Amino acid sequence: MIDVRMRGFARRHTVEAALALLDGHLRPLAAESLPLGLATGRVLADDVVSAVDVPGFDRATMDGYAVAAVSTEGAASYTPLALSVVGESMPARPFKGSVAAGEAVRIMTGAPLPPGCDAVLPAEFVDGDSGSTHVSALAAVSPGKNVGRRGEDIAQGTTVLERGRTLRPQDLGALSSIGVSNLRVVRRPRVRLVVTGNELLPAGSPPRDYTIADANGPMLTALAERDGAVVDFPGLVADEPDAILQALTSDADIVLVSGGSSVGVEDLAPTLVAKHGELWDHGIAMRPSSPTGFGNIGHRLVFLLPGNPVSCLCGYDFFAGRAVRALGGRPKEWPYRAIVAPLDRKISSQVGRLDYARVRIVDGRVEPLAIGGASVLSSTTRADGFVVVPADSEGFATGADVTVWLYA
Amino acid sequence: MIDVRMRGFARRHTVEAALALLDGHLRPLAAESLPLGLATGRVLADDVVSAVDVPGFDRATMDGYAVAAVSTEGAASYTPLALSVVGESMPARPFKGSVAAGEAVRIMTGAPLPPGCDAVLPAEFVDGDSGSTHVSALAAVSPGKNVGRRGEDIAQGTTVLERGRTLRPQDLGALSSIGVSNLRVVRRPRVRLVVTGNELLPAGSPPRDYTIADANGPMLTALAERDGAVVDFPGLVADEPDAILQALTSDADIVLVSGGSSVGVEDLAPTLVAKHGELWDHGIAMRPSSPTGFGNIGHRLVFLLPGNPVSCLCGYDFFAGRAVRALGGRPKEWPYRAIVAPLDRKISSQVGRLDYARVRIVDGRVEPLAIGGASVLSSTTRADGFVVVPADSEGFATGADVTVWLYA
Repeated sequence: MIDVRMRGFARRHTVEAALALLDGHLRPLAAESLPLGLATGRVLADDVVSAVDVPGFDRATMDGYAVAAVSTEGAASYTPLALSVVGESMPARPFKGSVAAGEAVRIMTGAPLPPGCDAVLPAEFVDGDSGSTHVSALAAVSPGKNVGRRGEDIAQGTTVLERGRTLRPQDLGALSSIGVSNLRVVRRPRVRLVVTGNELLPAGSPPRDYTIADANGPMLTALAERDGAVVDFPGLVADEPDAILQALTSDADIVLVSGGSSVGVEDLAPTLVAKHGELWDHGIAMRPSSPTGFGNIGHRLVFLLPGNPVSCLCGYDFFAGRAVRALGGRPKEWPYRAIVAPLDRKISSQVGRLDYARVRIVDGRVEPLAIGGASVLSSTTRADGFVVVPADSEGFATGADVTVWLYA
Repeated sequence: MIDVRMRGFARRHTVEAALALLDGHLRPLAAESLPLGLATGRVLADDVVSAVDVPGFDRATMDGYAVAAVSTEGAASYTPLALSVVGESMPARPFKGSVAAGEAVRIMTGAPLPPGCDAVLPAEFVDGDSGSTHVSALAAVSPGKNVGRRGEDIAQGTTVLERGRTLRPQDLGALSSIGVSNLRVVRRPRVRLVVTGNELLPAGSPPRDYTIADANGPMLTALAERDGAVVDFPGLVADEPDAILQALTSDADIVLVSGGSSVGVEDLAPTLVAKHGELWDHGIAMRPSSPTGFGNIGHRLVFLLPGNPVSCLCGYDFFAGRAVRALGGRPKEWPYRAIVAPLDRKISSQVGRLDYARVRIVDGRVEPLAIGGASVLSSTTRADGFVVVPADSEGFATGADVTVWLYA
């Protein structure tokens, strides 16, 4: 027998209040050690200080002749100065010896500057065969010219990168250059998906009779992975207390429940969270996804997301995604790029609740989509992004500049 | 013996000419089939047309009572209308039978609408216990109210997503909902790294004596992976013709050579590419990374990138990354976000070559970094992004609005 009395939520928090409540529970996870090659896009757990100078020696930045700059003083194309070539310096194969005034060493880019030298005379300012022992300088160079000094890239003791940094490709290069082969990064949150609903078939199943194929499992997997999580989605969970409780208490940092998150008797998850942990918030003044809730069971953060796919996406975007990012040491803010553009048609909204309006960008203008309902997931695939209408607003007039968060 | 005559490049192409030449050779790779769960962020190879309606049946979008709307005509809180409750409809467990005028079926959100019904009367407009066989309607509903129509999300025959689309999380949800469990996506380019240089130690090695640790291997790996490639980087390659040729002809779509890309006798790679394939371009009017080149050996695109890490990054950004993205079916353009902000200090540049200037954003203003040279990789980790100075420009004056491409 269905209980359709539908008491509804006793009260609905504002989104701001819910976020403040949530933020009080978000702390980055502990660090783990990783080989450099696996650290792209990960978040540094500690500052990295260089134990070495890069480069570790003075070196040529051009091909040419290493000299004491003083040996070239007064040299010009009409007053060439003789230099005696006493050897060569190649990368990792330095000239063994010292260079005196009037002497030069053939040198390649990246090769160590020999003792006695303080400059490199570029090859184009030298007359003489590459094999000869005597050449002529056709120009003067000043001390330090065409020389890369020891530590000019990274000096020993420098903080190369700071904790909390999401590692970019060039950061891995810099870390490699100071000899870092392992580094400490914030552990990726383990996210367990609990997708329930008697009407659901496993993701990607051809829908038949009165069933629908699960859309939220693949979507939430991709969302959480995008935000840095390792996702465990073993498949649909039966809409029964024991099965849901077992899934809620699985080995994870964050549990995302999709479906059964409202206040009807069939909505088991909120009751189970309240009984075995704490339900911090449930029912939020927003559309869609007002039945969203969150709390904890032991160390696990639990998010109750509506089964309707648009509501599920919206609830993830506002609350669960924020937690995934924060636990992984990332900025809590949306990973979406924001643009400002004029509205092509007004967006109306009810005061007292926040609205999540899907829009398209057409010729630089923002076109709200005519939305069927919270179950119309295709509204979010047709949309380029969304506009948030704050709870205290009746919406935006045609022509108003609005901020659009672009889906990525 | 080193040949330091350094003929230099016979001529240098402009960046625009080099890009036009390159683009003529860039075509997306063939498609491959993938399970839905592995398709996040991949590029669709074909349009996807839905073979089904989603949902496949009319359903309730609220909890309440399914009725023929006409049965509620005239109902109000002061003129309740009696309804006879003849059964219930739950998700995937439809009411078996038809509903006549004056009858109602208890229904849950997502459950099929029984034959004879065209609306759902929300529970809050009904008086009566959830178990009783008679209830009273306290409001009227119009036909279609609180009903999600068959196909309202996705109608059979609709093109759900178009080829070339990089799949977003919600796209996977939509694909799942139409029963797609496998889909055809553009194959990821296989990128082989060929990192050479006698002065190099393997990535992450503590530098010692006159050696430096390879920075380009880890950086290029991360760059190419970011752009959608599968990277093969088996380690440093000896600076010998046989070893380099073997690496150049390995099983890959794109070969990235770092080091030995200039015109000295030690620079083997350009000669080998010219001999065993075609060297389309070599020597580009830009700073850094003017020794960049590209060509092919058989079906493989080969990019010659300078060994200096900043030059290597820049050469990747301008040329190799473009090819990685294009072969993978992605937009050729930079994946970097652009912002426009005023310059805090002028950027000078030589007319005739394009400059890649690393900058920081400080208090909303663009601050050029004092750069040591092309080997100072830390300039790109300290930078927030870069400004491109076109070849025909002498630079930008203090206060000028410039476009900054933000590193990501």
